[in-house]
Amino acid sequence: MATRNKNIAKLQAGYLFPEINRRKNALLEKEPNANIISLGIGDTTEPIPEFVAKAIADAAIGMATLDGYSGYGSGLGMTELREKITERLYNGRIGADEVCVSDGAKCDCGRLQVLFGADATIAVQDPAYPVYVDGSVIIGATGEYSAENKNFKNIAYMPCKPENNFFPDLANTPKTDLIYFCSPNNPTGATASKEQLEELVAFAKKNKSIIIFDSAYATFIQDPNTPKSIFEIEGAKEVAMEVSSFSKPAGFTGVRLGWTVVPKELKFEDGSSVLTDWKRIMSTVFNGASNIIQKGGIACLEDEGWSVVEERISFYMENARLIREALQELGITVYGGDNAPYIWAHFPGKNSWDVFEDILESCHVVSTPGAGFGATGNEFVRFSAFGHRDNVLEAIERLKKKLQE
Amino acid sequence: MATRNKNIAKLQAGYLFPEINRRKNALLEKEPNANIISLGIGDTTEPIPEFVAKAIADAAIGMATLDGYSGYGSGLGMTELREKITERLYNGRIGADEVCVSDGAKCDCGRLQVLFGADATIAVQDPAYPVYVDGSVIIGATGEYSAENKNFKNIAYMPCKPENNFFPDLANTPKTDLIYFCSPNNPTGATASKEQLEELVAFAKKNKSIIIFDSAYATFIQDPNTPKSIFEIEGAKEVAMEVSSFSKPAGFTGVRLGWTVVPKELKFEDGSSVLTDWKRIMSTVFNGASNIIQKGGIACLEDEGWSVVEERISFYMENARLIREALQELGITVYGGDNAPYIWAHFPGKNSWDVFEDILESCHVVSTPGAGFGATGNEFVRFSAFGHRDNVLEAIERLKKKLQE
Repeated sequence: MATRNKNIAKLQAGYLFPEINRRKNALLEKEPNANIISLGIGDTTEPIPEFVAKAIADAAIGMATLDGYSGYGSGLGMTELREKITERLYNGRIGADEVCVSDGAKCDCGRLQVLFGADATIAVQDPAYPVYVDGSVIIGATGEYSAENKNFKNIAYMPCKPENNFFPDLANTPKTDLIYFCSPNNPTGATASKEQLEELVAFAKKNKSIIIFDSAYATFIQDPNTPKSIFEIEGAKEVAMEVSSFSKPAGFTGVRLGWTVVPKELKFEDGSSVLTDWKRIMSTVFNGASNIIQKGGIACLEDEGWSVVEERISFYMENARLIREALQELGITVYGGDNAPYIWAHFPGKNSWDVFEDILESCHVVSTPGAGFGATGNEFVRFSAFGHRDNVLEAIERLKKKLQE
Repeated sequence: MATRNKNIAKLQAGYLFPEINRRKNALLEKEPNANIISLGIGDTTEPIPEFVAKAIADAAIGMATLDGYSGYGSGLGMTELREKITERLYNGRIGADEVCVSDGAKCDCGRLQVLFGADATIAVQDPAYPVYVDGSVIIGATGEYSAENKNFKNIAYMPCKPENNFFPDLANTPKTDLIYFCSPNNPTGATASKEQLEELVAFAKKNKSIIIFDSAYATFIQDPNTPKSIFEIEGAKEVAMEVSSFSKPAGFTGVRLGWTVVPKELKFEDGSSVLTDWKRIMSTVFNGASNIIQKGGIACLEDEGWSVVEERISFYMENARLIREALQELGITVYGGDNAPYIWAHFPGKNSWDVFEDILESCHVVSTPGAGFGATGNEFVRFSAFGHRDNVLEAIERLKKKLQE
């Protein structure tokens, strides 16, 4: 038969979250009555705003009428949605015609791989959201996995750890075509300051790199001085694109809606436009986000929807505070959780899969082992602040009981 | 700056339908009051079933409640939907766990490229749905464009024309890893018989090829003896996967829902499972179709939804009959339109872009130039049967007036 794609063969084990799910199910087989609480995958738990639900429902009902029906839309999204994204989230800093609506940031990350192809060299924060690396492996932009280093060859890993305040040591980072950068960071919860992002933009300019900035958690930033978009940095439009999503702020993880901003100023070496190629990819291997769901996105960005979105964010950030402070009381050093819905807990000298298993077995609480995000994450475990309050409180109680032993 | 992906640079002009849209808009600039009727892109025009709209609306309203809310689902779709697809459309011939739900067939075609990668050799029908070729070019599985032959190097084009009854001459088709095959065919409207598909499966078996069978138009087949799925052919599970969609039968072109069937029996040369790698791709660069929209898919497949879906199909097939017979009355040789919503009209000796422009300028009717589907399509123009009845009748009147001149 046809040969297996050699790049897929390079991947190690399964994608992180299905693997965690497998281990959770293994526990449930042993202990069918275990009441497992998940602080693992960053999956929203609170209902979407009623105003948004109604907008989606109205759009659906409209689709059964001649007047309300629509077929294929622009592959890049409804104009109204693109405009509302620039107004609500970018202060008009970018043009609506630079916003390309999609079915989610993860999916756009996949298409970005197709855009840049196998010849693009890449740098990633370590630890990082697994899709940057796994996607790059699949497209063939990396070398083989090195079991010794627990990472892939031909990727410039940029360690982000307490010692460097979770910001890469750019002076020792090689030049690459692409730099993946996520702030607020998944998994560490760290945010980059304006000065740090200025440094990053200058670094990209010097190296002629393109920054792929992931702002999926930007709305969780509480500190007014922390940039919510790379485009708050002068000159960023010439070196950066930005991937973002409705998933976490609006509870759209299952609803599926996101966007990518590609500034007109962003060019390839030959002077051709990155946006033009992105549009070509979007029209060739994508067909637009659902028209019904886009109406929900528009409603999210209207005042009536947005006020509830902000309530939800405050709710999750209160969860984050509770988890962070509980772990601190237990004497665990934690990071994040103040401008991001993730708490990055340090277990010095321990293997994160062991800590994960231990917490799962003894507390019936699912976390995420830091090693799943990269070798530098190995002594850490990520706790997600997405959960019903009573579950979060119960999980905290169990952790206290176990870790005080 | 970073270098442009050399594979994207190989693409010729824009993706077909945006290019057609550009030409339509150019006419509108010249003649702002032109009442243009589109029989171009295969875009559904009739409302979705009310029963389906209500199911989507209910799911949306439920998402604003604690009980009805759900976050990330299985990246492969809801079990109920996967089961209903096998029952309603495959007579249980395939397992629900071999059905992978997605946001549409075009998007799955893109992910298929990522699955098989740049080293897979491919064969396509000529003419064909542009995404097979453009997607393969983008992933790097083809050579450069040959202006002389009007096609890409390293693709085995399988001419499908009246002379061979629109079925490839397999005896003269080289061995490739992948064979793209679409029946009912877009754009020719031809369907492959059971015997022809048996020949295709035997050919794939002999060559150890994988058939990527596109059945997006299967529900339009009227002839009870024509297979609606490659899996009606014995042994197909070992050599084929099937891409399909709710778009055309259920009016979901803008709603976005499709699926791909990957049988467990389908293996790579090393014995590893294609389904396992497909799942890995789906979990890494995709995040599942919208949970709200999947409820609409389920409703489509229930009796109350399906009866309206069948009405819509009959409606479009009546359009097809009207267009086909009108063109025939004008002495134009046409194909398709009896088991597919496309009519493939022959204009011997003419360039299809010229015919397209001529019909657009003089009748204000948008068709699709056959050359947009491949070099073999050059003397043909495709008419789509998707349209409101009055528009179809008006377009026919204009064509009659023009072509009788």
